[in-house]
Amino acid sequence: MIFRQLFDSVSSTYTYLIASRRGGEALIIDPVLEKVDRYIQLIGELDLKLVKAVDTHLHADHLTGLGALRDRTHCVTVMGERSKVDVVSMRLSEGDKLTIEGAALDVLYTPGHTDDSYSFLMRDRVFTGDTLLIRGTGRTDFQNGDPRAQYDSIFNKLLRLPDETMIFPAHDYKGETVSTIGEEKTFNPRLQVKSIEQYVDLMNSLNLPNPKMMDVAVPANMRVGLVQDEIARRGWAVSAAEALSLKDRPDVVLVDLRERSEREKHGVIAGSLHAPYPDLAANVHPGGMLHELARATGKRIIFYCAFGERSAMAVQAVQDAGVGSACHIQGGIDAWKKADGPLLR
Amino acid sequence: MIFRQLFDSVSSTYTYLIASRRGGEALIIDPVLEKVDRYIQLIGELDLKLVKAVDTHLHADHLTGLGALRDRTHCVTVMGERSKVDVVSMRLSEGDKLTIEGAALDVLYTPGHTDDSYSFLMRDRVFTGDTLLIRGTGRTDFQNGDPRAQYDSIFNKLLRLPDETMIFPAHDYKGETVSTIGEEKTFNPRLQVKSIEQYVDLMNSLNLPNPKMMDVAVPANMRVGLVQDEIARRGWAVSAAEALSLKDRPDVVLVDLRERSEREKHGVIAGSLHAPYPDLAANVHPGGMLHELARATGKRIIFYCAFGERSAMAVQAVQDAGVGSACHIQGGIDAWKKADGPLLR
Repeated sequence: MIFRQLFDSVSSTYTYLIASRRGGEALIIDPVLEKVDRYIQLIGELDLKLVKAVDTHLHADHLTGLGALRDRTHCVTVMGERSKVDVVSMRLSEGDKLTIEGAALDVLYTPGHTDDSYSFLMRDRVFTGDTLLIRGTGRTDFQNGDPRAQYDSIFNKLLRLPDETMIFPAHDYKGETVSTIGEEKTFNPRLQVKSIEQYVDLMNSLNLPNPKMMDVAVPANMRVGLVQDEIARRGWAVSAAEALSLKDRPDVVLVDLRERSEREKHGVIAGSLHAPYPDLAANVHPGGMLHELARATGKRIIFYCAFGERSAMAVQAVQDAGVGSACHIQGGIDAWKKADGPLLR
Repeated sequence: MIFRQLFDSVSSTYTYLIASRRGGEALIIDPVLEKVDRYIQLIGELDLKLVKAVDTHLHADHLTGLGALRDRTHCVTVMGERSKVDVVSMRLSEGDKLTIEGAALDVLYTPGHTDDSYSFLMRDRVFTGDTLLIRGTGRTDFQNGDPRAQYDSIFNKLLRLPDETMIFPAHDYKGETVSTIGEEKTFNPRLQVKSIEQYVDLMNSLNLPNPKMMDVAVPANMRVGLVQDEIARRGWAVSAAEALSLKDRPDVVLVDLRERSEREKHGVIAGSLHAPYPDLAANVHPGGMLHELARATGKRIIFYCAFGERSAMAVQAVQDAGVGSACHIQGGIDAWKKADGPLLR
């Protein structure tokens, strides 16, 4: 496994780059905007293909690198279902898996620091965001933070992991790089409480100043959605309502770019084909399924995904590959549902 | 294995804590003085016993924690044979092993950044000090730095390790935590040279300002030897010359505290017993060999070691344990040799 812990000294943020092998798919957790050049350089040096960029929660202390990484690598941006971010390519909730080639991380909903805080468990290690820090816990006094929820997330989810599970948090301010569940249980001063009430009192008495970057970072981090104006302006986007009227036409084929787990969870549009986004490049090039399909049938491809990001990037990829003219459903299945589009489960 | 990488953000120094198991012996590499409290706390939390504290070289950018750790934990301080430090408990050279319970690190002499720079290889990872950094190399313009020697250390020693060997340096200034030999071979900009001459030119053209702490750190880091005045004042120390005249007396027994490898390398005083320093606590307490020996024979123990540090700490330990009155050879085997004391090999 390739595992890199990277530090942003300005915000004391830890970012994690994960891949199962050289030459394989990579995942990045909590990337910092100012460090994106270095991430991309390192990803290239390690011969990796970045396929997913994930934030554990909406950060208040640094600008997220999610949008920039998606724009520059065409990776999928991922956040939790509960995040107030405008648009990400994919949203996950408790019990889902965050997968790349050779690795599947369990998604744990661990609110408390914010109401959109998630942790990700990968076998022997857990990425705890700002929920559980090394000898500390994330503050709970803004962004719908809730010490009661945090107590529950920590005591009833994270601390129930095996004692030897390594903890990799989103921040450390004192030079620590890793801890374990067993260590935090015993030595984290904030966890030496006898009751949830005592924890709530402790967290409510911290009186911390707001993060310096907060007024800039929170609004900026809520706007990471792909700018799709150009795609729409060129006529490569259809609304969900338009797609509803197009879907049964013989000169059109709908192609779902989502992962199998998303299809099972949210349903699929009847009659659509499945071509997962990670395989897109292979699919649209000569010899690829979509390439051959478009050439053989002359049908117009209408891509769709969860929120319209993967499909927008796919439209551009098809255009770049010179495979006729594709379009996509703006807003994805999310918009389709709102337009009362029928879904097969 | 327990492996902790700890960061001092003031000097951007990485410190490494290593042990083979909870409850076992630990080694610390490149500790920073200001962080000693935290190291000791963490060592306690992990239920470890610190037995060795090592500096890869005489640092110019931070104060070493070696002396403070020895004074507070009675661990052995270790540096390379070539270091200009006044006194450490143990010195190592190329080909030696740096050992603790369950781990043996190979010592590589890798001069260049300074003439006392050593690297330590532990199976899948190498601690490179300031010799080889992540995408950089240590400057060579002070403390007998030598770009020619550094080229040799890097190209003919470190880069000959397997490509997948992890590199853990003494510093990083950009938020990297680890690299590999293969990566540095290919992507370290300073190593993309065609000849030793080109490397020398590159290093000689850097024109870096001196480290801020240099004028304070270098002299301070040269004085880490144990203060033995109190031991001597109480009459618990003998000079090597005095020891020469005492060694054959029937009421005296010499006890060598060094490791087997040191005994083999430097020789032993004829007739002396061997009681390795790490076992001292067990040895001097009731039921321990030295305890019983002193009680049964009434002989006075004269401890010796390499440079007189372990033996000074042993004298104090015997005193604390109430096992008669021990003394030690001030300056150890080093002083004994200078006094032309005979040694058995």
